[in-house]
Amino acid sequence: MKFCSNCGAAVVTKIPDGDHLARFVCESCGVVHYKNPLLVLGCVPEWQGKILLCRRAIEPRRGFWTVPAGFMEIGETMQDAARRECFEEAQAEVRIGSLLAAVNVTHAGQVHVMFRARLLHPGFGPGPESLEVGLFEEGEIPWRELAFPSGEFTLRRYFADRAAGREDHHFTELTGALRA
Amino acid sequence: MKFCSNCGAAVVTKIPDGDHLARFVCESCGVVHYKNPLLVLGCVPEWQGKILLCRRAIEPRRGFWTVPAGFMEIGETMQDAARRECFEEAQAEVRIGSLLAAVNVTHAGQVHVMFRARLLHPGFGPGPESLEVGLFEEGEIPWRELAFPSGEFTLRRYFADRAAGREDHHFTELTGALRA
Repeated sequence: MKFCSNCGAAVVTKIPDGDHLARFVCESCGVVHYKNPLLVLGCVPEWQGKILLCRRAIEPRRGFWTVPAGFMEIGETMQDAARRECFEEAQAEVRIGSLLAAVNVTHAGQVHVMFRARLLHPGFGPGPESLEVGLFEEGEIPWRELAFPSGEFTLRRYFADRAAGREDHHFTELTGALRA
Repeated sequence: MKFCSNCGAAVVTKIPDGDHLARFVCESCGVVHYKNPLLVLGCVPEWQGKILLCRRAIEPRRGFWTVPAGFMEIGETMQDAARRECFEEAQAEVRIGSLLAAVNVTHAGQVHVMFRARLLHPGFGPGPESLEVGLFEEGEIPWRELAFPSGEFTLRRYFADRAAGREDHHFTELTGALRA
């Protein structure tokens, strides 16, 4: 941030009175501009035991595989956002299930929240942000070609829980932002 | 947002190519400015069966009671943020426990995430954003003087789970933003 989005004057970086962190502050109109972590919502869509993954058509990590996920929008619930991202990236309609993972991507100022999901029918295909979309058995997951550490964490916990017949949720702190 | 934070020119509101929602767009430098939901982190701090609540010294809802909670900062995990807010608002040191509630406050573009917590010792007092801080038995909770619906949802689920001897997590969609 270089200019105040309220009045257009140049901003300075300083700790406002009563605060403890440096913020972008407009000394012309007095507005303090906060920057806070972003929520990325996604899901692990299952159909007859297989998992739907997308190969990314956009940077970062173009060409690598990911669970459907993206930035939550204002006006959505977390579940709405996970469902929408799955439809946009994989043209797949899902019923969102239980909470699976919440990944603190601290260095990037992101929190990735992942749910279990079921495809409502076997229709799917690449949306504009995907090169291809496919269903994978657990033994077919392209672990070395996954786009993000949070996706790998999510998938490993998914399969471990499924094998154990449980639906736990898992927290961790990882690197690997969705957008560089 | 009226001016571009990158170049200072006036922004327009329009749907960018390839997008599906209206954004603030700078037609001078080309930057698209996204606005995304904010994470509010909090906890229900327990000491010998009693719950620590804060009476707000700031708007909105000045004078009303709340669980310690506030906006997550970049560089924190969700648990870090819940712990820091408890220290800032109630001068109380806690160990963060299990996930308790995730409240989609859709109209305000907020997600309130609440954890169970235990005070490490019985020291507490009002921070700069609190008028007073106190420990409450379940039967003493000032239900009609709670600041936010998400806090009431959180406390009701907390006591129901505690009575049942379980630590579940609960999703809901509610109104009642932390900052008006």
